[in-house]
Amino acid sequence: MTLTPTRDDKFSFGLWTIGYNGADPFGGPTRPHLDVVEAVHKLAEIGAYGLTFHDDDLFAFGSSDAARQKEINRAKQAFADTGIIVPMITTNLFSAPVFKDGGFTSNDRAVRRFAIRKVLRNIDLAAELGATTFVMWGGREGAEYDAAKDIRGALERYREAVNLLGDYVTDKGYDIRFAIEPKPNEPRGDILLPTLGHALAFIETLERPELVGVNPETGHEQMAGLNFTAGIAQALYQGKLFHIDLNGQKGIKYDQDLVFGHGDLANAFSLVDLLENGGPDGGPSYDGPRHFDYKPSRTEDAVGVWDSAAANMRMYLLLKERAAAFRADPEVQEALASARVHEINEPTLSAGESYADLLADTASYETFDTDAYFGGKGFGFVRLNQLATEHILGAR
Amino acid sequence: MTLTPTRDDKFSFGLWTIGYNGADPFGGPTRPHLDVVEAVHKLAEIGAYGLTFHDDDLFAFGSSDAARQKEINRAKQAFADTGIIVPMITTNLFSAPVFKDGGFTSNDRAVRRFAIRKVLRNIDLAAELGATTFVMWGGREGAEYDAAKDIRGALERYREAVNLLGDYVTDKGYDIRFAIEPKPNEPRGDILLPTLGHALAFIETLERPELVGVNPETGHEQMAGLNFTAGIAQALYQGKLFHIDLNGQKGIKYDQDLVFGHGDLANAFSLVDLLENGGPDGGPSYDGPRHFDYKPSRTEDAVGVWDSAAANMRMYLLLKERAAAFRADPEVQEALASARVHEINEPTLSAGESYADLLADTASYETFDTDAYFGGKGFGFVRLNQLATEHILGAR
Amino acid sequence: MTLTPTRDDKFSFGLWTIGYNGADPFGGPTRPHLDVVEAVHKLAEIGAYGLTFHDDDLFAFGSSDAARQKEINRAKQAFADTGIIVPMITTNLFSAPVFKDGGFTSNDRAVRRFAIRKVLRNIDLAAELGATTFVMWGGREGAEYDAAKDIRGALERYREAVNLLGDYVTDKGYDIRFAIEPKPNEPRGDILLPTLGHALAFIETLERPELVGVNPETGHEQMAGLNFTAGIAQALYQGKLFHIDLNGQKGIKYDQDLVFGHGDLANAFSLVDLLENGGPDGGPSYDGPRHFDYKPSRTEDAVGVWDSAAANMRMYLLLKERAAAFRADPEVQEALASARVHEINEPTLSAGESYADLLADTASYETFDTDAYFGGKGFGFVRLNQLATEHILGAR
Amino acid sequence: MTLTPTRDDKFSFGLWTIGYNGADPFGGPTRPHLDVVEAVHKLAEIGAYGLTFHDDDLFAFGSSDAARQKEINRAKQAFADTGIIVPMITTNLFSAPVFKDGGFTSNDRAVRRFAIRKVLRNIDLAAELGATTFVMWGGREGAEYDAAKDIRGALERYREAVNLLGDYVTDKGYDIRFAIEPKPNEPRGDILLPTLGHALAFIETLERPELVGVNPETGHEQMAGLNFTAGIAQALYQGKLFHIDLNGQKGIKYDQDLVFGHGDLANAFSLVDLLENGGPDGGPSYDGPRHFDYKPSRTEDAVGVWDSAAANMRMYLLLKERAAAFRADPEVQEALASARVHEINEPTLSAGESYADLLADTASYETFDTDAYFGGKGFGFVRLNQLATEHILGAR
Repeated sequence: MTLTPTRDDKFSFGLWTIGYNGADPFGGPTRPHLDVVEAVHKLAEIGAYGLTFHDDDLFAFGSSDAARQKEINRAKQAFADTGIIVPMITTNLFSAPVFKDGGFTSNDRAVRRFAIRKVLRNIDLAAELGATTFVMWGGREGAEYDAAKDIRGALERYREAVNLLGDYVTDKGYDIRFAIEPKPNEPRGDILLPTLGHALAFIETLERPELVGVNPETGHEQMAGLNFTAGIAQALYQGKLFHIDLNGQKGIKYDQDLVFGHGDLANAFSLVDLLENGGPDGGPSYDGPRHFDYKPSRTEDAVGVWDSAAANMRMYLLLKERAAAFRADPEVQEALASARVHEINEPTLSAGESYADLLADTASYETFDTDAYFGGKGFGFVRLNQLATEHILGAR
Repeated sequence: MTLTPTRDDKFSFGLWTIGYNGADPFGGPTRPHLDVVEAVHKLAEIGAYGLTFHDDDLFAFGSSDAARQKEINRAKQAFADTGIIVPMITTNLFSAPVFKDGGFTSNDRAVRRFAIRKVLRNIDLAAELGATTFVMWGGREGAEYDAAKDIRGALERYREAVNLLGDYVTDKGYDIRFAIEPKPNEPRGDILLPTLGHALAFIETLERPELVGVNPETGHEQMAGLNFTAGIAQALYQGKLFHIDLNGQKGIKYDQDLVFGHGDLANAFSLVDLLENGGPDGGPSYDGPRHFDYKPSRTEDAVGVWDSAAANMRMYLLLKERAAAFRADPEVQEALASARVHEINEPTLSAGESYADLLADTASYETFDTDAYFGGKGFGFVRLNQLATEHILGAR
Repeated sequence: MTLTPTRDDKFSFGLWTIGYNGADPFGGPTRPHLDVVEAVHKLAEIGAYGLTFHDDDLFAFGSSDAARQKEINRAKQAFADTGIIVPMITTNLFSAPVFKDGGFTSNDRAVRRFAIRKVLRNIDLAAELGATTFVMWGGREGAEYDAAKDIRGALERYREAVNLLGDYVTDKGYDIRFAIEPKPNEPRGDILLPTLGHALAFIETLERPELVGVNPETGHEQMAGLNFTAGIAQALYQGKLFHIDLNGQKGIKYDQDLVFGHGDLANAFSLVDLLENGGPDGGPSYDGPRHFDYKPSRTEDAVGVWDSAAANMRMYLLLKERAAAFRADPEVQEALASARVHEINEPTLSAGESYADLLADTASYETFDTDAYFGGKGFGFVRLNQLATEHILGAR
Repeated sequence: MTLTPTRDDKFSFGLWTIGYNGADPFGGPTRPHLDVVEAVHKLAEIGAYGLTFHDDDLFAFGSSDAARQKEINRAKQAFADTGIIVPMITTNLFSAPVFKDGGFTSNDRAVRRFAIRKVLRNIDLAAELGATTFVMWGGREGAEYDAAKDIRGALERYREAVNLLGDYVTDKGYDIRFAIEPKPNEPRGDILLPTLGHALAFIETLERPELVGVNPETGHEQMAGLNFTAGIAQALYQGKLFHIDLNGQKGIKYDQDLVFGHGDLANAFSLVDLLENGGPDGGPSYDGPRHFDYKPSRTEDAVGVWDSAAANMRMYLLLKERAAAFRADPEVQEALASARVHEINEPTLSAGESYADLLADTASYETFDTDAYFGGKGFGFVRLNQLATEHILGAR
């Protein structure tokens, strides 16, 4: 296994990530604007395969058609020159003042209409550039105050918008699927569809649920104190992991967007293990882009920006190496067996067994020895976790 | 409006709430056992209409059939004597050592079989007592360590179990629906279906989704930093609010189970407003039991237990009174209109309008004045919230 | 009691609060710049008595001396015209790129020297304007990564800086005290002196501890899940509440800076009760400015800005009214007595009692009836809290 | 370096840790009682050097003198047989019903007197067993409701108690120092002295501050979202790290007491690096016991209990090995220099420089090039953190 990224690793970056200028709520930029052409060439050089962007990352909100097209053309040339692809595109419905109460779910109907138009235009661009995933992060869809937003109404409007988009890509014959990116809060006090669970539930209410999945982000789920790996497993269970945003977060606080693995390292390990080795056959459970949605720390200059970009990929590859060794370790296999981890995949009922059969099985209840679980029948979970941790540490 | 609870208010309590003996991770009981007969009579006296319980609340785990039946009969007599009903029953799959890795999703298949049997037996009791909701809180379904639980397998097993239960109640002709109660963590490091969103999503994968809804608990959602009112609104949007657990929680920490309203007061107000006035016609959006799942503080003796039980109901009625006044206040109505809160219920597209029509509407995009939202077109959300807060304070 | 603010209420606002332009990590300004002269006049009009500011709020970082003086003069004229005073000044050591790793504790020594110079200059301005409190919020003093900052070294440098400032104001004869404002994180991953406790502890290591106290902010302590009222009580216990920043925060998440009382309402009530009625004689425990450090929501225009400013003061006055009624209620007095709340102020040892006397007192141990606390001797805390809550609700 | 623990590593365990029976708020014991003699022998066998305990761990609350002495004698014999020492003792003021509102700060004065007596008795035992640290965790000193506790009064009573204890050990000539263990909440809604900062501050108000330090616990600080390593550094800065409790916690939630390193792995690494290599000379910054205050997961039987005990020590030794390699890596040294990490230890003022000299130094301000920090002068913190992470992973 090599730690040098190749295009087969499918590493992609948002233009807004490496291009982050360092502005935050308490300070202005510490770095100048990063031009898209430079970004694309540099990404190719360090081993990424894809670039993603919001419309407003590439051309300023309110650009003239000519200015917009000029930037698109420059980007396309860079893609052509480098082989970098655009696996995903997204639309910014959160930065401009017009979106101060959201896009698809602004209380202001005119804003909602404008938002859909902005998205439709960017979907055309996505199709033109060959992007097959269209991410929707509704960062301003929410409220600070309970009385300010009729949540059911907002969900209805969100549904109306996504249904329309589904009709649009279907009619146009675009090979595009949508991925909703949940976040619990920030910049709104509470955001609609705050976790991947809420988003998965919402998707089932759509007219074309098959077109819509999720794009969970490490830090966003962890901002709600949720286990990211467990959430990804549920998204996989529901067949809805359409895209993924990898980064790092140190617990419940503001959105940190650290380098992948620079937050909860143990959870990053289990995530990579799930993505790489968690399929039914022990192979990959997800084969889409490994997309990094992080921010180079504000303390860094251009050298630090590119060091941090490379660090994301290196962390992923290191953890992939560790996960492979973990799976291959006979002692781990034995510990997994002792902990009966695989037994969860054995149906609880026997083949053909009905509830009546179960009710008739006295071994299952009447004579079942529940006392044996006091002081006995330990699961050995701590030992298993220690083995996992030692593999993270490269100590086995 | 009166602040004296009546049966029409549909206030119910868990036997384990008023019966909580004060034991916690750092100390033993501070109160003796509360007998069910005393509990039922006392609840009737203070104005509740219902009692709920886990099997193990009424008769100890592992009771003989005779001991079990004796307690059931005593309870039934108390119900008959008082008119207290049993709107909901649930099964304890978390206290006994046998469930140390969960019930429906224990890695140990024999435990899973035992768990289903235990639940089936209690479903029969639910039917016998006329309970129409069967709550499932999977407090031990989870893990502390990522390697210890195959989450997809666990979700499959959970699905298998709930499908079987659905078959059972259908075949038996029981008038019972299931309500899953989510919780993010405690007692497990991470619990399966950690939020109501995750539970709603899971339900869509079942064979009989129509039989299964959610039983969200105030504190459980707030332990993930989520807005409870917003979550309840999504459950209502999805037609899945089958039951509700009301209590109080002060932010992200251990499960406090305070009196309803003794945690986040502003959110408790918006919740009551939603439940009482949030239906499409301005009437109730939910007509099931107002169920209190709280714990009388460990510092209290029997007097404090019943003071605290009464406080739950009084808080609900006070907030209902405040919410009615809020809705009736002309200045509030004006502020809601200024904030365009109701405009969210107006479809974004006009009747019959297609995306093609929208694309052709230059007013929606090409000539739309986005600049007007800078320094103008404020929503007045803070004023609206101040009005809501003044109604909470009874200051208007 | 009146709900109309007067100067006697000592309400003050930061220029950066009413002047907040709406920029956040995910969007630019939604409001134009607010001129200081307009701000001062408007504050006078709505009943505030004071304005506070960072140097960079009044004149841009890097302003020429002339530009700086011009703005100072304009402000001074406005103060003279309105009677608005400047009770507190502070220096911005966090916005400019030079402070990207902090001011007093930047790893870069040249930055530390520059930071001290910038503060010294602003202390002279504070003295000139009659400000008696100089607040220091070290928002950039911290790190995202443990290896990046030698915390003990940073504390040494912080100490060096504050010692120097103490010498300076002493030598100059300025009537100025310093107040450190703690915050756990944001914009840095972890900030030095993350809570008021850490700040109080640090102060004791200074050469002139008597010159330095704390300026706790509601939301900052609540971002660590801490009880703000309890923290303020400890600051009072240690004689160190030199200033206070009031605002609202909804639990552990990004720094929300909501209107005071629009976050945790119950805690806001107990805080006002402490400040107004918590002195040894039942009178005020703090007589400094009631300073609002909040942000008008980004959704608001100028009308909403001033509505929100007024809302802060109205919330304080309403809660002051509620707290007075709470204290005056005989049933509350009785409940406080039952709960033995005042008994905590009775020394545990009797007058003149030594530990030897205590050891000899068999009633204290050998014959003390600990069993009486099982099932008895309840404290009635829930009832007391219900009474407090009913006073918040204006329901008594 | 060896990964086999020896007594020189000074690893100690609480009797309540390995003896934890698995009871939690939602379930009873899953393991039988662990006898102290077995515990001591087993600890000696796996390489620990010390055992610690609360009085109630060894003999039940309310034991007769004879029963108490019998258990003490059995323990002493085990110590003699194995060489295990007792570096620390503590007193349980939280489990029995009598302490339901706390010990030193119960509103009930009789309880406070009883609590002091209980502690005095256990201090005598500490002296008898040669323990030199007496830990005080005030788990019940706190409140759920703001009106229920006069915090200043409670701090006064806490101070009164600790002053008395200080007199006692001084008069008795005991070689014992006290260490306060902070915790933000659980089992109380808010606990007095919620963080190590609050405890350090409080200590300065005591009559004999030199006798009192802190015993910070990994999980307790992390339950408030605080950086444990940074907190320990402040405790060291203030000369107050008298003892330390090591364990694992996954963010802000209930108190998990996981194995050390099984929570936030990166922070565990930086902690071990600080303790082992963070002294002024690059040597240890702390030479006391490495005390594990963890709980073997409830899912485990006796095998799992001892596997988990061993895992704590192995994690510490592995991280110590990683930290040594980190410090020895020339690329790390170069990255630390680039990031100017050591420059924080260089005073900001030159030797003999006064503020007047600084004011006269135009290079420090007037001609200082702040613009150079925009787009330049990056700190390279991300690279440094990547190097640290690769050392954790054993990848260098």
